[in-house]
Amino acid sequence: MNSDPIGVFDSGIGGLTVLKEIFRVLQQESTVYLGDTARVPYGIRSAETVVRYSFENTEFLVAKGIKLLVIACNTVSAVSLDAIKERLSMPVIGVIEPGARAAVKATKNNRIGVIGTEATINSGAYARVIQQIDGALDVFGLPCPLFVPLVEEGLTDDEITVMVAKKYLRQVRDKGIDTLVLGCTHYPLLKSVIGKVMGDTVTLIDSAIETVKEIRETLLRDSAECNALREPSRLFYVTDSPDRFKSVGERFLGQKIKTIEKIDIGL
Amino acid sequence: MNSDPIGVFDSGIGGLTVLKEIFRVLQQESTVYLGDTARVPYGIRSAETVVRYSFENTEFLVAKGIKLLVIACNTVSAVSLDAIKERLSMPVIGVIEPGARAAVKATKNNRIGVIGTEATINSGAYARVIQQIDGALDVFGLPCPLFVPLVEEGLTDDEITVMVAKKYLRQVRDKGIDTLVLGCTHYPLLKSVIGKVMGDTVTLIDSAIETVKEIRETLLRDSAECNALREPSRLFYVTDSPDRFKSVGERFLGQKIKTIEKIDIGL
Repeated sequence: MNSDPIGVFDSGIGGLTVLKEIFRVLQQESTVYLGDTARVPYGIRSAETVVRYSFENTEFLVAKGIKLLVIACNTVSAVSLDAIKERLSMPVIGVIEPGARAAVKATKNNRIGVIGTEATINSGAYARVIQQIDGALDVFGLPCPLFVPLVEEGLTDDEITVMVAKKYLRQVRDKGIDTLVLGCTHYPLLKSVIGKVMGDTVTLIDSAIETVKEIRETLLRDSAECNALREPSRLFYVTDSPDRFKSVGERFLGQKIKTIEKIDIGL
Repeated sequence: MNSDPIGVFDSGIGGLTVLKEIFRVLQQESTVYLGDTARVPYGIRSAETVVRYSFENTEFLVAKGIKLLVIACNTVSAVSLDAIKERLSMPVIGVIEPGARAAVKATKNNRIGVIGTEATINSGAYARVIQQIDGALDVFGLPCPLFVPLVEEGLTDDEITVMVAKKYLRQVRDKGIDTLVLGCTHYPLLKSVIGKVMGDTVTLIDSAIETVKEIRETLLRDSAECNALREPSRLFYVTDSPDRFKSVGERFLGQKIKTIEKIDIGL
């Protein structure tokens, strides 16, 4: 039993899909979320820059007294997870391994597709983790750069998004995959469009859901879950103006964000 | 006669549409371009942050011995042009005033539309400049956040982009405007799609073309144009990995970028 908060960071708002799932599954846990909105998007930066940013974010959250760190960002999980694990004694959970493991379990024809940002796909991180588990699996990565701006524009259920999805996803459908990993924290909001385009025969893997399963197992294993009956605290920090984070973020979370504090990091 | 280079900076690659127009109209001029790709996009940052970044970029270019500074970025032009002008003794040219002046000249029914990023439109900078020239003009601003990612994805002539353009532009068309300012340096690449959607009766104002007219007039006025017969030098600097800048940038420029140097700024 440990009532310290869970720390979650992302380069921006995408990680809120993971946070939303924490709220749903681990209702008693307090959380501290950091969105590095002054330096978003990480996906177009060099590995060296992403590692530096992620260390700074980690330090901020550790100073908040967290018991477990969630890297709710595919780019950072791909590039910098091991380096962060080495630095910390607490559990550190990224979003790639849980999604990769779930995909390996789900596939029946041994053909897995992974969609994400250019940085995530070009890093090859999902393919590496999946093939470490089972070298006989075929993995097809596909960057879908327009999905993030479409989600942030609120077009999660628009004909335009369906057309973009058809244009992109044809390339993984043609590979005969039976499992598709949504390898970007924004994509759970497109699950219905992606599901329609891919059809019933393809299983979609939602990294947010898989990541929170792993957080839960880790807390139970360490007897570190929070059973306190008080209201959990839910803190939000951003590194640039909170206005946009609040309006777009509330759509991601499906609930109001009461207070957000702007902090300076890495200046 | 002055053979020092013209300095141009943008938060990323959008400013290359202005640079391309400089290459076309001012063929003898040497140039130094800085794309602050480590900190792009500026459009979602606070004014305070944008001003700080723009000072750092300015310092870098001034140290390169430029004779004139072009701020090829609507966000910086909206937020930080006056502050930069105060600091420098050389001419400083932004992209907003030239476009605004051309729109005032072009309109016959006194109704002008302006499209751009959320930051540019929310700053109200175009409306302010246009109404300073003629307070009787009506200005209708409209943010079009998906246009930049669509251009960067290379979909400048795609049915998806036509649908997005129709969805957005209906809102300015319904205002009965006869002039539309392309208030973002990416938008000249969408001129053909936007022109089709708006129809023949609406004049499109290309900020890149108007800005370079003003650069030319300023150089002529100051007798600072370059008449040297040698090949002009064309230098490119970026603040993060040059790979993506090169591939997307060559599409913007319509020509090869031979060498790009990565520099560190504001660390």
